[in-house]
Amino acid sequence: MTEPFRIAVAGLGTVGAGVVKIVQKHGDLIAARAGRRIEITAVSARNRTRDRGVDLSAYDWEDDAAAMAARGDVDCVVEVIGGSDGPAKAALERALGAGRHAVTANKALIAHHGQALGALADANGAALRFEAAVAGGIPILKALGEGLAANRVNRVYGVLNGTCNYILTEMEKTHRAYEDVLAEAQKLGYAEADPSFDVGGIDAAHKLAILAALAFGMEVDFASVAVEGIERINLKDIEFAADLGYRIKLLGVADFDGEGVEQRVQPCMVPADSTIGALDGVTNAVVCEGDFVGKTVFEGPGAGEGPTASAIMADVIDIARGARTPAFGVPTAALARIAPQTEGAHPAEYYLRFHLQDAPGVLAKVTAALGAEGVSIHRMRQYGEENGGAPVLIVTHDAGRGAIDRALAVIAELEVSLAQPVAVRIEKT
Amino acid sequence: MTEPFRIAVAGLGTVGAGVVKIVQKHGDLIAARAGRRIEITAVSARNRTRDRGVDLSAYDWEDDAAAMAARGDVDCVVEVIGGSDGPAKAALERALGAGRHAVTANKALIAHHGQALGALADANGAALRFEAAVAGGIPILKALGEGLAANRVNRVYGVLNGTCNYILTEMEKTHRAYEDVLAEAQKLGYAEADPSFDVGGIDAAHKLAILAALAFGMEVDFASVAVEGIERINLKDIEFAADLGYRIKLLGVADFDGEGVEQRVQPCMVPADSTIGALDGVTNAVVCEGDFVGKTVFEGPGAGEGPTASAIMADVIDIARGARTPAFGVPTAALARIAPQTEGAHPAEYYLRFHLQDAPGVLAKVTAALGAEGVSIHRMRQYGEENGGAPVLIVTHDAGRGAIDRALAVIAELEVSLAQPVAVRIEKT
Repeated sequence: MTEPFRIAVAGLGTVGAGVVKIVQKHGDLIAARAGRRIEITAVSARNRTRDRGVDLSAYDWEDDAAAMAARGDVDCVVEVIGGSDGPAKAALERALGAGRHAVTANKALIAHHGQALGALADANGAALRFEAAVAGGIPILKALGEGLAANRVNRVYGVLNGTCNYILTEMEKTHRAYEDVLAEAQKLGYAEADPSFDVGGIDAAHKLAILAALAFGMEVDFASVAVEGIERINLKDIEFAADLGYRIKLLGVADFDGEGVEQRVQPCMVPADSTIGALDGVTNAVVCEGDFVGKTVFEGPGAGEGPTASAIMADVIDIARGARTPAFGVPTAALARIAPQTEGAHPAEYYLRFHLQDAPGVLAKVTAALGAEGVSIHRMRQYGEENGGAPVLIVTHDAGRGAIDRALAVIAELEVSLAQPVAVRIEKT
Repeated sequence: MTEPFRIAVAGLGTVGAGVVKIVQKHGDLIAARAGRRIEITAVSARNRTRDRGVDLSAYDWEDDAAAMAARGDVDCVVEVIGGSDGPAKAALERALGAGRHAVTANKALIAHHGQALGALADANGAALRFEAAVAGGIPILKALGEGLAANRVNRVYGVLNGTCNYILTEMEKTHRAYEDVLAEAQKLGYAEADPSFDVGGIDAAHKLAILAALAFGMEVDFASVAVEGIERINLKDIEFAADLGYRIKLLGVADFDGEGVEQRVQPCMVPADSTIGALDGVTNAVVCEGDFVGKTVFEGPGAGEGPTASAIMADVIDIARGARTPAFGVPTAALARIAPQTEGAHPAEYYLRFHLQDAPGVLAKVTAALGAEGVSIHRMRQYGEENGGAPVLIVTHDAGRGAIDRALAVIAELEVSLAQPVAVRIEKT
């Protein structure tokens, strides 16, 4: 058998400990599949004394991850420190600069600096892989970069943040408000103490920018992702959506129409009985549409120690086997710069919610404002009086976001309008 | 850029023509991803004059696929002739024996001879890949052999035959009998003139044996797959299943409990709202359970020109990139021989249907016979009289297949039993 493949683990939080566990538990299995043993040479973390539930005594300890990354007896650095800058970035730059391979679970880092890191890897003949950065244990980057590599992909979308999906499904199931369920998610460890990256959509946006780069062969363009979180989703809309046969999901959607790419993260409605609509709890799913393959769906656990460690080790095994697929499927320098588009470029049906005076002629004013912008109505429902007005739901035919926004601005100013109108895109699945 | 990677296409049916189309349409895209151009050197088929809707004039024509496979100017043979023996096998043996790489979509061939062909590939330093053989365009073999390679997989199952899934979903939707829907599927081209491989479960069994080999690192053991088709599923059971919240699917299931492996293809009930239960039409889905990753689901088109060509070209691109992962994830000689188990080894809930005399004491006799075999009842429903008797449905608690069969044999002999009792396994999803 070939020489062992030697890795160093930078960061020993939950995921880092998971990597150590999987290497210790499945040494023989991994050796059979990789064609050589995979051994941990050194580990690094801030706190040396903390008990992590794994035996680290066989590995060298390094206080400085960047110094560890450049050791002569390390073939590949596994970076699970986290953070888009600082020690994580320094360790990866040091590793790749020294021609060491690198595997990371760090979506923020790749979304912000993947372009530069990929170029650095290419220049030094090193592999850079980050399967664990997107959709946890689901091998979706491998699917896009390899399994569907013969396709022109024109659309990739999905539920990319387990925390948000947990909150939205719990709100629907238990009829509780957003704040209540968020607090519970924090108690259960599904949401961070500062949940803004998750509920604000940033985490999903990081992942979407990485997916789009691989799917379309484009430069990582995180700055162009339009981001809206789930903070403003209220229980009413979730219940009205259910009544209409929809569920609200925080979706990341990237569309490439041959000219430009639209990337957006936003709460959308999807049919309750679609694969995406049926997704419960912290599960993630990614849908990919290719011109030859058609529509494929990949579903699985989006986070957690085991799934993340599984994805990291798949990358390590690939590299140990000799795979040198570039970070984004093509050489980083060959990634195209594709013009960004906005939601306006792709019409869709919209769910609109109004709270209106219950009086003659009111609906006529609202529908006239929609008609003036060319927005045509597909379904409408009026509910019984509530808080001195009547909730009215409208599902439109395909309309542009601009027309919707303009019509809603007009309606909001009408005297008969008792609350700010709400619009939620109904995503095609 | 490196030298072009030269392929020869053996077989020019729908799938072979699809491969030619994808190479012609996506030459630049594929070159960027593979790191070199992929060119077709030669093609081969029985009928030279047939119009296949693609321009073949730039390629050498070979009457003999095996001779073509060994040409000095061919790096990789794409075999899409079909059939578990004959010219397909001869072409692959010739190619691998001469150190040429080979890609095939031929599930029957791999299920029967994959072991020998894998060994031949290993001995000659050639790659043998067959992503298109299982679940069409879904990159499931890549997921098992690479994406989830760090896991001990203990269960893989799914809907592996689109024809059967189409027939079962159409029966439920349109309330028509099996024979009617089969005839329609034949007219639509979803089922062959001789449908026995599909509806008899053989096609799914071929795919299951390949999945199990990759998932568990075991020898391909097609002979041990227990196979039951959908021919005996009647509309009544589909409707009763729906009434109980289930749908009937032809599942391929492989379970590895650390000691032995059970492989079976059979109609099963699954919850209607599970991913597998919600699967409509010709779509395939594969569920994989690994010890670190948990449960992942892969869904997509199970057949057809585009999806199959997509999977074939993914293999070709991998090989052109230099990937040399062995056919079954580990060297063929290292595949374990694992003892086969039968359905009896893994208890499950069962759906039982009886047609009984509508008279006092009848249910007592039936439930006594079940009780005598230790089969305990979870739910029971009796429907109104029909054909001089009453349909009675029972859902059991977990029970062994042996106990069910013994109890049903006793009940079938009772005078009060007006028709052969039916048992359908309720698969855990």
